[in-house]
This record gives sequence, C-alpha cells and structure tokens, in this order.
Amino acid sequence: MIKQYQEKPLRDLTFAIVGLGLIGGSYAKALRNLKVRKILGMDISHGIARACLNANMIDEVIEADGSNLKEADVIICSVYPEAIVGFVRQNVQNFAEGMLMTDATGVKGTMPHDIQALLPESCEFISGHPMAGRQGSGLGMSDAAIFNNSNYIIVPTEKNSPEAVRWLEEFAKALGCARSVKVSTEDHDKIIAYTSDLPHITAVALVNSASYNENTQYFIAGGFRDATRVADINPDLWSDLFLSNRANVIAEIENYQKQLERWKKAIENNDREALKEIMREAGPRRRQLY
Amino acid sequence: MIKQYQEKPLRDLTFAIVGLGLIGGSYAKALRNLKVRKILGMDISHGIARACLNANMIDEVIEADGSNLKEADVIICSVYPEAIVGFVRQNVQNFAEGMLMTDATGVKGTMPHDIQALLPESCEFISGHPMAGRQGSGLGMSDAAIFNNSNYIIVPTEKNSPEAVRWLEEFAKALGCARSVKVSTEDHDKIIAYTSDLPHITAVALVNSASYNENTQYFIAGGFRDATRVADINPDLWSDLFLSNRANVIAEIENYQKQLERWKKAIENNDREALKEIMREAGPRRRQLY
Repeated sequence: MIKQYQEKPLRDLTFAIVGLGLIGGSYAKALRNLKVRKILGMDISHGIARACLNANMIDEVIEADGSNLKEADVIICSVYPEAIVGFVRQNVQNFAEGMLMTDATGVKGTMPHDIQALLPESCEFISGHPMAGRQGSGLGMSDAAIFNNSNYIIVPTEKNSPEAVRWLEEFAKALGCARSVKVSTEDHDKIIAYTSDLPHITAVALVNSASYNENTQYFIAGGFRDATRVADINPDLWSDLFLSNRANVIAEIENYQKQLERWKKAIENNDREALKEIMREAGPRRRQLY
Repeated sequence: MIKQYQEKPLRDLTFAIVGLGLIGGSYAKALRNLKVRKILGMDISHGIARACLNANMIDEVIEADGSNLKEADVIICSVYPEAIVGFVRQNVQNFAEGMLMTDATGVKGTMPHDIQALLPESCEFISGHPMAGRQGSGLGMSDAAIFNNSNYIIVPTEKNSPEAVRWLEEFAKALGCARSVKVSTEDHDKIIAYTSDLPHITAVALVNSASYNENTQYFIAGGFRDATRVADINPDLWSDLFLSNRANVIAEIENYQKQLERWKKAIENNDREALKEIMREAGPRRRQLY
C-alpha cells in the first residue's frame, strides 16, 4: 500500500488543517509558502474557516460531514488537547489509506496512544509540536514566521515507523525550524511543564502582583517587559494545558518556589556571598540558551 | 552666580562620567552622538578609562587627583550605589561653581540627601536614572541605544530646584528616552523593587530551577527565553542593589509568592474557573505595558 507522504515531495501533497487558530493559521501560511498541492481547513467557527478561504490561506473548507478529508495525505490537528480524540472518532471513516496525521498539542499524556488505537492499520499518527507561539490567540495572530529558528519537538511512541519520524523531521526543517528533537511522551510533559508551563505562570504572576497599578507602565524597563511578555495568553487553551499536565506543573511550581525561598533567605540574612553565588549560577545557564 | 548647565545648550557643556561600565559607557556614547563640548571620564579600572579614550568615547581621562573635574558643567555618576558618596567626599573640592551632578543609581535610600549635604551651596545634585539596561555588564555591553524609548526616572528631593528638574527632563529627551517621570525616593525604591528587582529575581530563579539541564535549550520557545532574558546579570552590582533595598525586595518576593500559591491551589483543585480568572486578570494588565 502506498503512503503518499513517503512517496511525494511536499509540493505534491494535500494537507488538512484542523483548527485555524494562532498555530493552525501559522501552519496554513507556512504551507502556502511551501506551495503544497492543496490545503483544506476547518475550524469550530465556520466564520474563521470562511475567512481563511477568503484570504487564500486554505483552498477548501472541510465539509461538515468530513467527506473531503479523504483528499488529505497529511492531517495536522491544531485544536485544544481535549478535542483531538473527538475529531478522530468522528472522522476516522473519512481518512485516506496511508494518511499521516500529526498534532501541535503542548501536552501529550496518553493522547498519542489513544489516537493510534483509533486509526486504521494503514494510517499513522506521529505526535509533535513546534516550540513556537506568541502572545495573544486566534487566527489574527497567526504568522508563518513563528517556526523560524524554533525547536520542533517530536514525540514518537513505540508504534511509530522510522519513516513517519523522518518525515516530520524534514517537515520541521521545511517550516523553518532550526532543529527537531525526539522525546518520549512522559519526558515531554515533564520537560514542557518546566520550559513552557512554568514561564507562562511566572509571567502572569508578575503582572498579577498586588503591586501592579496604573503607573507601573512608567517604571518598567526591558527586564519587566521581557519577564511578562507571555502574560497575555488564551485562558481557555491554557487552562486545558495546565490541567492536563497537573502533577508536572505542580512539581515545577514547587521547584521554582524553592529558588524564591533561596533568594528571600539570602536577602533577609544580608548574605552577599549567597546572592552572588545564586547569580553566578544563573549566568552560564542563561548564556547556553540562544 | 552663573550655572552653565542652565545657560548653555548641551553642545556647549562639558560632561564628566564617573564609572564607565554598561551604563556609564552608554552615556558616553550617547553624549558623543549629541556632540557635547567635551567628555571626561574615569573608572575604577584605569585600563577601562584608557580604552574609552582610545575608542574616542571620552576626550580626557579624569586625573587621579580629580583636578580636571573642575571643567565639568555636569557630572554623571554611574558607579555602584555604595561608591557615589565616597566619590563626592573625595572630590568635592574639585567641583566647579554651579556644577550639576546626577547619578544613574537603581536604588536611592538616603543617598540623594547625603550627597546634597556634602555639596557646596552653588552645586546641585539631582537624582535619577534611566529605566534602561541590558543583559551582561561592563563597557563592552554599553550602547547609546539603551536610552531609546525608555523611561527616565527623576527622583527630586525638597532641596532640588525646578531648573535642575527641568534640565534633567530635557536631557532625558535628548538621550532618546520616551518620557520622564518624577517620584520621591521612598516611592522610587518601593516601585523599583517590583518593576526591576523582582523580574531579575524571577528570571534567575527560573534558570536556577533543579529542572534545568543541558537539554533545556532544545525545549524552549519564546516564553522561556523572554522570561529569563535578564538572568545573566552582574553579581557584584546586583547584590548591592538587592541589599540596599532589602525590605522592599522582600515584600515584593512575598507578594509574588502569593500569586504562585494562587496558581498552585487552582491547579491542585482542578479549578478551571479560577485558572481562567487568573489569566483574564493578567491579559489587560500586560497589554497596558507597551
């Protein structure tokens, strides 16, 4: 049985994008730049899907009955984590033989296994996502450039073929990502709790401090501005992400709280050496993050 | 008695910069762009002062005996907070009549009053600093552009003349700052503990977490990168800043810890509504910070 995605170059493949928000819209724009054969798209809001069609971001809206999903060689699901399994259940009868499906979900849990179990033998689900995004939410914030120089995380399970993994690596490169890394689902969620969930929490916590007021804006510099850059996020999406990764996120908050206690103790004790040591530890770590 | 700084335009004034690190070096470069009459400079490291001279950032090194400080119409002190009073004590006999002195110190305490008390009648000290800076430290990181669109904080006391305040406002504008704001020394240190000290602490705490390892770099996106941008700071300078502002910094850490507890509780309780509420609170606040 022929798997189109393995046989043909990107420009000869048809893609379906499920969910046309910030990330889905960015995939659509990037795929258009790559001049792929055809882009199908759908969104829970039909108005958004129509807007993408009118803007020539997609070539066709996916039918309500899912019938034209058959054309898709590759399906990219960029919907809320909770919605992926539902989408697959509802549409699996419309998937083409040999289709490759992937997602852009920031928390994995058992989802990759759940979806693989629902797919017919000839189809494959390879989980992953770009470490990309930006403040705000929705189609209006989408941008093909979010992939540029980002990291693409691939989360294969023991069920995945080397071909699917390799394809996603190549696809990430084509999107403009600087590199791709492979990681297990368990490690993924643990790592992401630290590198993604936690900095969003610290940013929100900073602007939510009781010390914030209408004059804060006149007294900030780059430090505050940068530290709070991602404080303006989509509450619906992110409450999903945090709650689907609860244990890991709580562990990361606690690790972080220990560092704050270390700071507080050093300052309370007037311990200049301890403070310097804390900062000397951080410098080389930060310089490793390009 | 004539106060040169009040009578003459910037291009006819001689400036002395005391401390040629990141901030002092940036003043020197900005003053050169403004084509002021003459720039004198000194640094605790004579090699740094010579380097500035060789790079044409300054026109003359301040003599070890301070004798040529007499030429300065305006002196800008950009040394560690602890060092300013010492500099004034040692050099007050060399200050010209009508000289205006200012600083760039991130924490004020009683320093403005202390210095005003040391100065002769004809001289004036007006405290302030740009809300500007960047990662790293030292002359090599200095850049005239740090002032661009930044906020300039002016911290007058009851001793200051309206002329000195107005001059510093105009000077900030000439440097490229977007606006200047006036605040009392007490309010200054309290506000800065929140808008400057705290985000440096949160950035350092993030990279110092026990979860950081050599693979972290492959799993980060803009969120982590931005939130930790200022984690690489000068330990000597910043331990001074934190310890000179102890009570305020501790209060800010504690306010911040309350927000983290709020997050942790909402996640532990699986309280989706509370999480959304936290994020809904932060969005508009963040959007207020241009």
